[in-house]
Amino acid sequence: MLRLKAVAIDTYHENVAYLARSCPLYRAEDFLALSKIEVASSGRRILATLNIVDDTRVLAADELGLAQQSFRQLGLPEGAPVEITHASPPASLDHVRAKIAGATLSQSAYADIIRDVTANRYSKMEIAAFLIAAASFMTTEEVLSLTRAMAAVGTRLEWRDGIVVDKHCIGGIPGNRTSMIVVPIVAAHGLNIPKTSSRAITSPAGTADTMEVLARVDIGVDEMREIVGAEHGCLVWGGHVNLSPADDVLISVERPLAVDTREQMVASIMSKKLAAGSTHLLVDIPVGPTAKVRDRADAVRLRKLFEYIAGEVGLTIDVVFTDGSQPVGRGIGPVLEARDAVRVLENAADAPDDLRERALLLAGRILDFDPGLKGGRGVERARELLASGAALEKLRRIIAAQGPPPDGATLGAMTRDIVAERDGVVEAIDCHRLARVARLAGAPTDKGAGVDLFKKLGDPVAQGEPLYRIHAAFPADFRFATAMAGSASGYRIGARA
Amino acid sequence: MLRLKAVAIDTYHENVAYLARSCPLYRAEDFLALSKIEVASSGRRILATLNIVDDTRVLAADELGLAQQSFRQLGLPEGAPVEITHASPPASLDHVRAKIAGATLSQSAYADIIRDVTANRYSKMEIAAFLIAAASFMTTEEVLSLTRAMAAVGTRLEWRDGIVVDKHCIGGIPGNRTSMIVVPIVAAHGLNIPKTSSRAITSPAGTADTMEVLARVDIGVDEMREIVGAEHGCLVWGGHVNLSPADDVLISVERPLAVDTREQMVASIMSKKLAAGSTHLLVDIPVGPTAKVRDRADAVRLRKLFEYIAGEVGLTIDVVFTDGSQPVGRGIGPVLEARDAVRVLENAADAPDDLRERALLLAGRILDFDPGLKGGRGVERARELLASGAALEKLRRIIAAQGPPPDGATLGAMTRDIVAERDGVVEAIDCHRLARVARLAGAPTDKGAGVDLFKKLGDPVAQGEPLYRIHAAFPADFRFATAMAGSASGYRIGARA
Repeated sequence: MLRLKAVAIDTYHENVAYLARSCPLYRAEDFLALSKIEVASSGRRILATLNIVDDTRVLAADELGLAQQSFRQLGLPEGAPVEITHASPPASLDHVRAKIAGATLSQSAYADIIRDVTANRYSKMEIAAFLIAAASFMTTEEVLSLTRAMAAVGTRLEWRDGIVVDKHCIGGIPGNRTSMIVVPIVAAHGLNIPKTSSRAITSPAGTADTMEVLARVDIGVDEMREIVGAEHGCLVWGGHVNLSPADDVLISVERPLAVDTREQMVASIMSKKLAAGSTHLLVDIPVGPTAKVRDRADAVRLRKLFEYIAGEVGLTIDVVFTDGSQPVGRGIGPVLEARDAVRVLENAADAPDDLRERALLLAGRILDFDPGLKGGRGVERARELLASGAALEKLRRIIAAQGPPPDGATLGAMTRDIVAERDGVVEAIDCHRLARVARLAGAPTDKGAGVDLFKKLGDPVAQGEPLYRIHAAFPADFRFATAMAGSASGYRIGARA
Repeated sequence: MLRLKAVAIDTYHENVAYLARSCPLYRAEDFLALSKIEVASSGRRILATLNIVDDTRVLAADELGLAQQSFRQLGLPEGAPVEITHASPPASLDHVRAKIAGATLSQSAYADIIRDVTANRYSKMEIAAFLIAAASFMTTEEVLSLTRAMAAVGTRLEWRDGIVVDKHCIGGIPGNRTSMIVVPIVAAHGLNIPKTSSRAITSPAGTADTMEVLARVDIGVDEMREIVGAEHGCLVWGGHVNLSPADDVLISVERPLAVDTREQMVASIMSKKLAAGSTHLLVDIPVGPTAKVRDRADAVRLRKLFEYIAGEVGLTIDVVFTDGSQPVGRGIGPVLEARDAVRVLENAADAPDDLRERALLLAGRILDFDPGLKGGRGVERARELLASGAALEKLRRIIAAQGPPPDGATLGAMTRDIVAERDGVVEAIDCHRLARVARLAGAPTDKGAGVDLFKKLGDPVAQGEPLYRIHAAFPADFRFATAMAGSASGYRIGARA
């Protein structure tokens, strides 16, 4: 038997095992071509991709090393005796092969695949094979099957009250932090809105990252239930609640590949809403030249897919198309976006108009779900709750209930202003590019890093006038971000009308 | 700047870089979601997948580690100052995304993809994305483009003589080592047959592994040319000649995924023949219930694809369908297969009939390429060269020219006989299963490991009578192989007629 060793390497959502080439018990090369081995001990077993080690300081000849995720998953102490065998590939890979060959898969096939993916039985190349095979075509029935399969492997929340509302934006627009305003408004009205949000993966800020500037967001199911019972709303990190563990694994491959199909996006979103126990859902689809959805025809197709899945799983849905032509508000990055949201709730004079109006529109459409409210009164009611300070008070109560944030996040002290190269009018702003600059500046790892916009579409600018300011806290990040912004600012300045 | 460190880990055809989580210059987490970084120094640069290290004994905070393949590729000494940046994905991934979306790709798109794959710019998940996207459909024009792209990145052999013949079997049938007999016959006749063969990747023996029992096979282009000049033939390892470096990388993903499309197989084979400078090619397609090709209709489709590509690249081709219902000869594994081939050439009384007749058929079809030979005389001529001992003498001369094998390979000393469970007649033999048993027994790493068959289709057997013998040299391998054979022998015994 080999002795188990924890290898302090983070392989990011892939199980990796290490075996010494000089191992006297197994010949490492025999395992290499098929890459995967099964590691077993005391009735526990995991599948892992094999790497071979040629340095006995890293791994002794009689040791079997496991990278961090796989070590945690096996759940045994270092030194435990382990055996390895040639891994049989997960049985559900047969379904993936059928999909590659053009088959339409059944509900149970998707359930098998998602169970194996969630249990880390797939290597990253196997996950890629599944995603790409499914990307070539999926019937709407298959999207439904995938949605149900993904919802089934995570935590399932249940709520006693009749109406549980939720909102979701498909993303892609920097600064679009409406949830921070919508949740307090809706909760102040008295509808239950237990909002779980994601942390940014490749974007500069998720709602969970932004809320974490103000309050703790790593909140479990029981505590979440308590907070919603008292305040009708919360803003917590969905990852901690474990609503869609399959999604975390799939995303670790989707993002690097930058393959983002409509079908997989809808299944991912709807599975989380199903798991979260929502009864009514508002979906925000920004449409614009650098947004995820670029034209109205595409937006309508996407809306119909959302509506079909919602109908089948028994969720009331409203889909709204919003302006996706430029970033929303002024800040991009957690601290800056939290600042914008709070200013709107404070009815501050310098609060960004576009963020306020957008949040009111969305909150109004959600309030229209309330059977007790007269039809079409939603936006008006939302405006009242914002103007009266009731929404701000509700955010304060939610913050108090969730508890203080982990550490004081302050705006990055290293700054650089990016200026206009000519006189004119802002004609276009590239959402991708600005998100990338903010990300390189350190957001969201550094909550205080990001980009603060001074000019929006239609604003007149003079040559040399600042368009936006980069904030960073870390020299390498500052260098990456300023280099990126320097090569192209992301702004197009047109002739003055 | 970080200091470069070689990390003694073999990641098998994937570039992997290691960065300490405590690195003061870069924040490792910022790079994690997109996985890939660019490592640059002195004008050299490589792309690598990032792993994060939490143990300063493995990697110091100011070091950048590279796994073996990536370290070799960067080509700088340890301690060299290196910088890292966020990697832009290889530009050719845009073509892959277009293919995923259903596009038909151009010749230049395939050339871009294959160049990047060969330069290790693709991660394994990116390679999987390409393979699966292409698996969903490829036009015959695309197969041709892929063939040309793969041939273009490797060594290109050129021969002065008019006719350069070659043979290729699509594989899948254990023991099918006809090349060891065909090459000496054809070379004895005087046609040039510079045979490059593969080593086994997931099968128990490749022709290169088997020839290596008798002679050195790691032979470069110049030496190969000399040997063929003197003897008209050789049997060398194609990997050493580097005919299709792209194939090596693609296979490292294809095999674990067990995705093997006709189109990609044909492109892989034909690119190597194109690179090898062959003018006439015989392709052997075994057809049988556990072979790669299971029925005649499928075989005909495959033949047509081979013929189309051959026509376009200007290669004369002959495709022959052979019996793929059971292993060929008796031995499975390099030493055992070399034994069978030599016995045939020696005209030994106990030489396996099926291997001899098959080799004569194939050699005869190749000799029919000779314009100097009367039409249809090929098989007869092959039989003469075998019976006269000319072929055996030619093999001896080729062995002498290639030089002695690296070390004496002897038959594995640990043996286990697998016996019939009932009286009857051998009705079916599962090629996959027997290949797997031989592989687990240690073949081809252990040249002397494998399976020696005592019974073939139609043979009568008595209960308890040995069907085959497992040979192994290593206890773990012996355990794996006997356990596999014990759970199902791979033989089906039917009632005696």
